[in-house]
This record gives sequence, structure tokens and C-alpha cells, in this order.
Amino acid sequence: MDENQEELERHFQQLREELHQNDLQDFREHFLEMHIYDQGQFYQGLDDQERQLVYSYLSPKELADMFDVIEEDDEHVEEYLSEMRPHYAADMLAEMYTDNAVDILNELNKKQVAKYLSLMEPEHANEIRELLHYEDDTAGSLMTTEYVSIVANQTVRSAMYVLKAEAQIAETIYYTYVVNTDNQLVGVISLRDLIINDDDAMVLDVMSERVIAVHVGDDQEDVAQMFRDYDFLALPVTDYEDHLLGIVTVDDIIDVIDDEAASDYSGLAGVNVEEVDENPLKAASRRLPWLITLLFLGMSTATLINHYEALVSEASILAVFISLITGTAGNAGTQSLAVAVRRLAISDDKEKNFLKLIIGEILTGVVTGLVTGLTILVIVGIWKHNFVLGFVIGTAMMAAITVANLAGSLIPMVMERLGFDPAVASGPFITTLSDLTSVLIYFNIASLFMERFIG
Amino acid sequence: MDENQEELERHFQQLREELHQNDLQDFREHFLEMHIYDQGQFYQGLDDQERQLVYSYLSPKELADMFDVIEEDDEHVEEYLSEMRPHYAADMLAEMYTDNAVDILNELNKKQVAKYLSLMEPEHANEIRELLHYEDDTAGSLMTTEYVSIVANQTVRSAMYVLKAEAQIAETIYYTYVVNTDNQLVGVISLRDLIINDDDAMVLDVMSERVIAVHVGDDQEDVAQMFRDYDFLALPVTDYEDHLLGIVTVDDIIDVIDDEAASDYSGLAGVNVEEVDENPLKAASRRLPWLITLLFLGMSTATLINHYEALVSEASILAVFISLITGTAGNAGTQSLAVAVRRLAISDDKEKNFLKLIIGEILTGVVTGLVTGLTILVIVGIWKHNFVLGFVIGTAMMAAITVANLAGSLIPMVMERLGFDPAVASGPFITTLSDLTSVLIYFNIASLFMERFIG
Repeated sequence: MDENQEELERHFQQLREELHQNDLQDFREHFLEMHIYDQGQFYQGLDDQERQLVYSYLSPKELADMFDVIEEDDEHVEEYLSEMRPHYAADMLAEMYTDNAVDILNELNKKQVAKYLSLMEPEHANEIRELLHYEDDTAGSLMTTEYVSIVANQTVRSAMYVLKAEAQIAETIYYTYVVNTDNQLVGVISLRDLIINDDDAMVLDVMSERVIAVHVGDDQEDVAQMFRDYDFLALPVTDYEDHLLGIVTVDDIIDVIDDEAASDYSGLAGVNVEEVDENPLKAASRRLPWLITLLFLGMSTATLINHYEALVSEASILAVFISLITGTAGNAGTQSLAVAVRRLAISDDKEKNFLKLIIGEILTGVVTGLVTGLTILVIVGIWKHNFVLGFVIGTAMMAAITVANLAGSLIPMVMERLGFDPAVASGPFITTLSDLTSVLIYFNIASLFMERFIG
Repeated sequence: MDENQEELERHFQQLREELHQNDLQDFREHFLEMHIYDQGQFYQGLDDQERQLVYSYLSPKELADMFDVIEEDDEHVEEYLSEMRPHYAADMLAEMYTDNAVDILNELNKKQVAKYLSLMEPEHANEIRELLHYEDDTAGSLMTTEYVSIVANQTVRSAMYVLKAEAQIAETIYYTYVVNTDNQLVGVISLRDLIINDDDAMVLDVMSERVIAVHVGDDQEDVAQMFRDYDFLALPVTDYEDHLLGIVTVDDIIDVIDDEAASDYSGLAGVNVEEVDENPLKAASRRLPWLITLLFLGMSTATLINHYEALVSEASILAVFISLITGTAGNAGTQSLAVAVRRLAISDDKEKNFLKLIIGEILTGVVTGLVTGLTILVIVGIWKHNFVLGFVIGTAMMAAITVANLAGSLIPMVMERLGFDPAVASGPFITTLSDLTSVLIYFNIASLFMERFIG
């Protein structure tokens, strides 16, 4: 792919020169022969004066094709829009696939949205307005209205005519949805089946009636799971009376899967990994809020140890094992958290398993705690020639691990039940919390056996 | 979707009854009308005697369609194969898409692979044998050979004839690849373009010549990135002389994206989250290896603190802040690790930025360390009425955070350079390592100022 990259950069250089030399014809030819993603890469590398030239060389429709690809990961889209003439921008938005235009409009303020909608043809504006209503992260917010639908009582040949007519504007033509006169979804036929079957066959006879659809209010994670399971390229979206409202396509689902994964990962790390920038000051300002919050939470652990300072000054050996116990319990809690978040993401029946999962996680904690505790008992016993001390450390570690496991699984499950994203229960939060309980357990067990191990 | 689920379960129940009543005709009709994913769900819920009935009711081809969907996430596939008659199993493997059959065969031992290949028609066996050679996690291991390719000097009409003939067996017919007489890839035409264009147009005139392909040895992560960027449904795979070898389809890429995300997440948590099972003993046995390894690593921190026990027994106040400093540095290290792993996953030019990223991460560490250190200096100074102690804690924390940031970014980058997956540099490993350096920094700074703060 590296040679491709070099070739592409030479191509970009040439395009730039054509732009500066006002070589309209060559620029258009060379620009439009590129894949729209590469067009986007070129466009995003231009300065604002060069972009003005682009707007005068390309039609709103040509720019719209490119914007369909770049909208999803460019934070400058608002700036691009504002530097276009409003009519040009409105025309471009109207020419985009509705779902992508809606994504862009959702980033703008209400006044701007109203301006662009008022400049569009009413037909386009209404389509967009309908989709603007749907809540974030639902099937409705992902769907587009550019699909092909037909009625069942016609031949494959006539269905192919409809398809050819709509092929230019539909986001996918690879599935044709069959509806009744009330626009209720009754079947689906893939382009493959249309091609394979005889031209004179009736759609009714060759369509699949067991059509799998999602509801407009379904969570985008559930929709993504359907795509994973069934290997679809698109899924129809219906309301609760089976009326066909739109379709979700696989390219949007790949973005959903990416975003969900990045958000789970960010939660576990306590930092938003999606905004990767290389300016150390900006990076620090993104990480500091969590760090300082956790520092204050960690202060409660310090205060607790301070409370037991007399114990430590009597037996300074206790200080040696603080970080070992808090660290190991923190590791166990992180494992438990990660498993719980993953399980919540893929499980279908979250409600009934609540108690079962918690009990399972406590048992897992007891087993891992027992093994880890016994290990450290033997190590400390031999190292310090003091098996009472070993017993104290081992027991404290076992209890701390069990509690950390419980917290690691309970907290995300409770968050899920309360309607929050369980992945927000971040790893650092769990480990800092587990530090507190571990220290509490450790010093209480230590003070019980104090007389016995300092000898 | 819940009502769908209930309906599906009633359907499964009915199928089961038909199976037990030897109602061949109804069973076949009701089974085959289901989506292949649902067929798989039903099949996976059967016991071995019921599965034997299925094998006698369905043809190898019918079973193959279902196995194309279940192969990717069922660890029992080997068992299923062994309970079929060898000829039946071989026929089924031959009828599957080649990439999926290869995935299954890669799980078997060499003797079994040889057996099934010897029972197949040579043509199928050779196709499979070719794909068995490719390394895991490369484009070659993902690709299938069931694609449609044509030569350029023919009309759209004749191309459509070829497509119709191959539609039954090709994994996707939505792209047709154009090759020269030497089987080198020279263009691509989508089914949409075939349908839109005039039947008498020449393929040469309507195909896209700027065809984007991946090389057979390209890493699957890079291939997935191409799918994300370009929104393709399939990509052609070539060797280094542009000969067309196969295609990769988007459904396989979704699995790759899922697997990569789960593996990054597992790395950060120090537990494999992909094997979610509810047996506490099994769960514990998966988590213990990491926990015990980290326990031994943590012992080095304990040994280090033990080395400074005299210091602690003189100033037991030092023990109060051990877990705060190690915990905060660990949190900072985890953030830095997560950002580094993410950056390595999405960055195109990993080589040249190495030094720049490391310096950036050190600077980020200095800034976050400075802010966090000053915060704790003030807190401790006021709390303990001792600003020298505050200075010791603050300085130690700043240094510990800087080092943790460096380790968090350096370790994954070095692993990437050495050819390992950077995500294996797990979160718990970084925090345990950062514990060690934090304690070392803390006690050294403390011993320098010892005389001044115990007053």
C-alpha cells in the first residue's frame, strides 16, 4: 500500500498545480476519477483559498459525494459549510444521503439548521426534518431514506426497471424491500435473487417473507449485533406497526462498532482515546480531570492509612505490603470489570441473570483470592520466617480480591440497570475504589493479629 | 426484537417436534425457510442424536450454507464434523465458501485435514489447499476465491450473463473484477454500474481503472482500515505482480474489527474477555495466570519497600502516601498506554513519528505531573501543616507520573517495533511496573529530605 500512497501524493500535487493554474478541465477530470475517500483526503489537505477554488470548480452534487465519506470523522465540517455560499451548502446537503446530511446538521446550532433547510427544496428539507427527530444512538439516527421499495404483485422484470431508475440515488440497491399498499414491510428480495430468477417470475413468489427488521427506537448496539450475527449489508427499519421508515447500511454499522469499541476502551483506561492529538498541553488537559478526580478519591485511602499510622509505626513491616495488596486487588477488579462490561454488551437477557452473574463473580473472586492468598502466605511465611504475618497478608489479599471482584462486576451492572452506559464505570475508578477497601480490610485484619506477628 | 425472539423459539420447538416425528418434508420446509443464522441457532441447541437426524434430512450443500455463518464463533465445530460421516463432512466443506472452510480446517490436526481433502473432488481440494498456506491475520487468510472476474473487451450485456451464471456460487456479485489475459487486475465494475449502464456499452469504457486492492500479505488490521475509509463491501486481493488471487468481504472485516477491539480491551484489562463463561472455576483459571504473574512482579515492589523499612519506621507518615503515589502514577500510565495503543492502531506512518511521540508523551507527563504534584503539595501541606512533606510527596508524584507516562507509551511502541502486538503490553503490567518505579522515586526523594520534614 506504500507505493499506492506515494502515487496518491504525486496525484495530489498535480491536482494542486491544476487548481492554482485555473486549469478547470484537467482538475475536474483528475479529481473526479479518484475514489471519493481520496477526494476527501485531498480536500482536507487544502487551505481555505484553495477550497474556495474547489467550490467554484465542482457542483454541489459532486462535493456531496465526497462529503458523504468525510462527514463521519472531520471536526472541521462546520467550518467548511460556513465558508461556502449558503445556497451552495444547502444544495450540497440536499444531495447527500439523508442520514449523513442529518449527522452534519446535528452538529450545527438551530439557527444554522433552519437556514439551510429553508434554502432547500421542500421535498429534501422534509426528508431531513423527519430524521432530525430521532434520538442519538438509535436505529432511527442511523437510517437513511434512500432505499428501494416495491409492491409484490409485479414481475421480476418490472422490479428491475424500478431498480434501474432508482439506482443513481439509492444508498444501496442490493436489497429491494417489498411493501403492501399501506407501506408495511412484507418481504425482501436481494439483487442477487432478482438476477438469478426468471424475468417473468412474480416478486411475490421469489421474495423472502421472513424479513428481519429493526425497530426505529432500537439501540444502535443491538442493531450492530444483528449485522454481526446475520452478515447483512443493510437492514430495514420499521415503526411499531411494521411501516417501513428507512434502512441502515453496513458502512454506518462499522462506524458504530468502532465507536462502541473505542468508548469501552476509553472507559477502561480513564481517558478518551478517540481524540488523539499530539499537542502535549491539549493531551494533558484531557487527562487531568480524571487524574485529579482520582487523586481526591485516593486521598480517602491516604486518610484511612493515616488513621492507622500508630499501627504502622509499631509494625513498619505492614507498610511493605500495602501496595502489593492494593495492586493485586486492583488487578483483579479490573479483570472483573472488563468481563462484566463485555458480558453486558453481548448478552441478550440482561435482566434475569443479574443475581446469577453477581454470585458467579463473587465465587470467582473467592477462588482467585484463595489461590493468590495461599501463594502470598507461603512466600511471606518463608521470606520473613513468619507464618502469622503470611496468614495476615494472605487473608487480607483474599478478602480484598473478593471485594474488588464484586465491585468490578456490580458497579457496571447497576449502571446498566440505571440506564447508564456500563463502560463509563472506568478501570481507574474501580482500582482507586478497590485501594480504599483493600486498605481497610488489610489494617483491620492486621490489628486483630498484631500481638502475634510482631515478635 | 423480543417478540421476534419468542416467535423464533416457538418455531424452534415446532422444528424439534417434526424432527422427532420423522416428519422429513415439514422439517425441511420449515428449516430451510429460516435465515441461515437462525438455522445455526437451532442446530447449536440440539443434542447429538437430534443432530444425526439433521444430517440425514439435509444435504451437505444445505448444511454448508448454515456452517458458513456459524463457523466463526463456535468452538464445537470440530465435534460436529467428527460426528458426521467423513464423506458427508468433506462434501459439506467443499460446498462452503473457501475462506470459511479454511477457517475450520485450520482448527483441525494435519491428519484430519488430509482426510477431508482426499475425500473431496480435486478441484475443491486444490482451492482449499492454496488458501491453507496463508499466514494468520493477513489478507490472504481472510480472502475467498469465489469472486466474479471477466475480461474487459466485452459488452455490459455479456458481463451480466457471466454474472448470472456465477451468482449462485460467488460470495459477492456486487463487484465484478476485470482482469487481463494474464489474470492481472486492471479494473472493477460494481453491479450498480452494470445495471445503470447501457447493455451495449463496453466494459472497458465503463469500468473504474483506479481499482483499490490489498496485497495478500497485508496485515488484517490494515485491510480493515481500508474498509473503514473507503466504505467498500469487498476488496480484491493481489500478489505483488497484481495477479488477482481472491476477495475479502465486509462480513469477515466486521469479525476482524470485533476481534481486534476485544483483544485491545483484553490487553488493557489483563484478562481474555472473549471467553465469557459463567463457571466460576473456569473463569478463575483464566484470570489466575495473570494475577499470579503480577503478584510476583509486585513482590519486587514489596522487596523494595522492605529495603526502606528503616525509613518507614522512623517516619511512619511516609506509609500514608505510598498507595496514593503508586495509584496516581498507575492511572497516568494506563491513560498513556491506552492512547499509545490506539495511536499505533490508526497511524499510517509509525516509523518516523517514534521519537516525536515519545517526546510528546514525556511532555504530557511533565505537565500532568506538575499540575497533580502541585495539587497534592498544597493538600498535604495544609492537611499536615508541613509543606516540606508536601514538597516531597508532590515532587515524587510528578516524577512518578512522568516515568509512568514514558513507560506507558514506550513499551507498546517498542513491542510494535519488535513485531509484537502492542496491545499485549497490558494495563496491569504497566501499573505494576509503575508501582516499582514510583516507590523507588518516592523513597529516594523522601530520604533526601528526611531531616527536614520530620520535625
